[in-house]
Amino acid sequence: MQGVSAVPSVSYSITVRLEVPAGGTSVSQLTTAVEQAGGIVTALDVTASGHERLRMDVTVAARDTNHADEIVDVMAAVPGVVIGKVSDRTFLMHLGGKIEMQTKHPIRNRDDLSMIYTPGVARVCLAIAKNKDDARRLTVKRNSIAVISDGSAVLGLGNIGPEAALPVMEGKAALFKRFAGIDAWPLVLDTQDVDEIITVAKAVAPGFAGINLEDISAPRCFEVERRLREQLDIPVFHDDQHGTAIVVLAALYNALRVVGKHITDVRIVMSGAGAAGTAIIKLLLAAGAGDIVVADIEGVVHRSRDGLVGELLWLAEHTNRLDVTGSLREAVAGADVFIGVSAPNVLRGEDVATMADQAIVFALANPEPEVDPAEAARHAAVVATGRSDFPNQINNVLAFPGVFRGLLDAQSSEITETMLLAAARALAGVVSDAELNAAYITPSVFNPDVHTAVAAAVRKAAGGPAELPVDPDAADAEVTV
Amino acid sequence: MQGVSAVPSVSYSITVRLEVPAGGTSVSQLTTAVEQAGGIVTALDVTASGHERLRMDVTVAARDTNHADEIVDVMAAVPGVVIGKVSDRTFLMHLGGKIEMQTKHPIRNRDDLSMIYTPGVARVCLAIAKNKDDARRLTVKRNSIAVISDGSAVLGLGNIGPEAALPVMEGKAALFKRFAGIDAWPLVLDTQDVDEIITVAKAVAPGFAGINLEDISAPRCFEVERRLREQLDIPVFHDDQHGTAIVVLAALYNALRVVGKHITDVRIVMSGAGAAGTAIIKLLLAAGAGDIVVADIEGVVHRSRDGLVGELLWLAEHTNRLDVTGSLREAVAGADVFIGVSAPNVLRGEDVATMADQAIVFALANPEPEVDPAEAARHAAVVATGRSDFPNQINNVLAFPGVFRGLLDAQSSEITETMLLAAARALAGVVSDAELNAAYITPSVFNPDVHTAVAAAVRKAAGGPAELPVDPDAADAEVTV
Repeated sequence: MQGVSAVPSVSYSITVRLEVPAGGTSVSQLTTAVEQAGGIVTALDVTASGHERLRMDVTVAARDTNHADEIVDVMAAVPGVVIGKVSDRTFLMHLGGKIEMQTKHPIRNRDDLSMIYTPGVARVCLAIAKNKDDARRLTVKRNSIAVISDGSAVLGLGNIGPEAALPVMEGKAALFKRFAGIDAWPLVLDTQDVDEIITVAKAVAPGFAGINLEDISAPRCFEVERRLREQLDIPVFHDDQHGTAIVVLAALYNALRVVGKHITDVRIVMSGAGAAGTAIIKLLLAAGAGDIVVADIEGVVHRSRDGLVGELLWLAEHTNRLDVTGSLREAVAGADVFIGVSAPNVLRGEDVATMADQAIVFALANPEPEVDPAEAARHAAVVATGRSDFPNQINNVLAFPGVFRGLLDAQSSEITETMLLAAARALAGVVSDAELNAAYITPSVFNPDVHTAVAAAVRKAAGGPAELPVDPDAADAEVTV
Repeated sequence: MQGVSAVPSVSYSITVRLEVPAGGTSVSQLTTAVEQAGGIVTALDVTASGHERLRMDVTVAARDTNHADEIVDVMAAVPGVVIGKVSDRTFLMHLGGKIEMQTKHPIRNRDDLSMIYTPGVARVCLAIAKNKDDARRLTVKRNSIAVISDGSAVLGLGNIGPEAALPVMEGKAALFKRFAGIDAWPLVLDTQDVDEIITVAKAVAPGFAGINLEDISAPRCFEVERRLREQLDIPVFHDDQHGTAIVVLAALYNALRVVGKHITDVRIVMSGAGAAGTAIIKLLLAAGAGDIVVADIEGVVHRSRDGLVGELLWLAEHTNRLDVTGSLREAVAGADVFIGVSAPNVLRGEDVATMADQAIVFALANPEPEVDPAEAARHAAVVATGRSDFPNQINNVLAFPGVFRGLLDAQSSEITETMLLAAARALAGVVSDAELNAAYITPSVFNPDVHTAVAAAVRKAAGGPAELPVDPDAADAEVTV
């Protein structure tokens, strides 16, 4: 999930190359101007110096793009300052892409070539032709997944197309490697047709051990995933649905630990019945939640509401056991848990005040949550958001690397609800009783225990080995001729 | 192209773990037995030693798989020897795949995360949404190509399917990186339907700057390539056709330099009218060859032959200007050049003897050439094969890395015959007059000049920049906010 910052952030950091008169107060005027404009000077490097003029690189953290523009303007207004090129640190990091392909063995001479390529490779091909499963042992398929998107629902940016989605998919691939050692490659598709997406994903499947669907808009994402799961012998996971669901359930487990309630007893009200909302509800039901009411833009979903089709019909049939009707605001009165994956500001603090004692509020819309988290915190016991600048960030990075690590280590051909539940429980369990409190229900993504715990739980639930070899290449090395 | 060795080769090297009685002559009996069986002991490591027994790893080069089996049998027959596991060095190199994905920047903390992933990545996405061409600047698309195969015509192994083709495609990807710094990812397809292959390649195109088609059988490969070239804005190259054609033309240029003939004057007889043969003929014609006769399994292709369709009809209309008929053996009489991309032993030495003085013979069928190269050399001035154990190997690795490097550096949207010709000329030119002789018409793939020369020629022919920036990331770094 995406988050923005109300304070200057490194993700909006710019480096301004400029010249100032040597001597005098130009430099201090410059830094004062930046600070008065609300920016933070994080670095100031003189790159050339003369009797008359200095050339310097000034790096400034800004709040957002407009703010960065304003800061450049105030810098330009300082007498004697000449602005040169303005670089954006985030853009610099994306230049030429954030990922690359690497060979695992040196190719130094003809002997290496004859083993990696022809003629030696022919024997490896024949072994796999004889036993297709050997592709999981003798090729990159063992450790690689495809990150597939059609660019139709990218972050909060909407339908921006495949090329514009690529930086996100590359970033995702980078996170798979960083947190779980997985070789992921992004495939951004020049089609948004359900049948074509399925054709493409099925066609490329032989080279991958899993498929991570990403940022495909609802309701198409449901059909794409369902049909691929039916037809493929590798696991298919739509992160916007199931990754979110795992992290929400894990965070809810821990929030419930904080307030001393149990998932089977609480009343949960959801805002949002899209891809994420539907997946969250299904996982909550699987985890034993009995009383869930979901509202969308038309109000509470109930059995007698008009025009129910597809997933909404399913939700009406499987939630709202008391057959509540009305608005979201009416529904939250008395609820123990509110989970929003919808739109900004659908609730106010006074609505949270109507909830049960020791209420839990997850306001996950990005960049602006369903309710102001500071307001919510005045009435609720535990508040979580999707933003990195508040406590308790609900962040999919907590789940997807470990989930796929576990699936790959188990050589799993599918992903089941049991595995998702196991992942959520393992993730919740990373926060010990000693660490747990209302401002710490989710661990840091940089805590390595997160990914190993999730991976081990998924591997076990998928019937994988109890222990992993220290060096899979060595453990697997016996190849009788 | 694939080659096999008649002598023991590292590509058929095995490591045999075994135990022998300590003391006595067991070890020398063992090495003698291996040598008598025609193997070569290349390493002998004692891994454990006791009073009674030694455990050792014996590495042996064999001729082929059966020979390796025989050697293990003779080792087992030495009194007191107990054979343990037998590992195959080539298989060991393929375990878990030969390539991986790597991140280009460290992800150490939340600041890194906020630039590589959300929220910072959103601005990069928006920039590309505004200007799609920026994907070539701000994503991995700048330097990456897809290596796509349906596994229908893999090496000389035939239709072995996508999983079994994957080791070749990974090897190809590794060579793209090793020789041209290109990030290639293999996509092996679970379909051999022309329309589906085209759908898939078109769909994945936004994430790549080029497509290398590989080991797709004729005649489907012609239609796949033609339609993709019409419909895509990135270059599409079928290496089995055009890579082979470039290297054959380059080798022919140099062979003609050796014998002092010119391409416009010589009579060329081809054996084989498949994917490679057709592409070679088209490039020879583009290079000015005037007199080409091609024969397939039914004999010489001529205008009045029955049943000509598709590429064969095209060949009949564009070759054989003297309207020769009859067999391949009849056609080669008096020819200056024979080029075979067909089947083993379609000619004998006595046929080569009927050719013109200073004849050139390229017998490229693998593993067994169209004519025994030693026989051919008794009658021809220059002989080349596809094998690595004879002089003058015609090896596609000489062309494809540099070709794609040039296309990517020029950000080319297509690949033209002009570029293929430029590549062939550049490749031929790497062999200087001082180096050139009948046994050295093609340079080594490990000669770095090969790939830079081919890349520069293709880049220039594609209208790319005369000079490349030393560091593309730095040269490209100005990103005004």
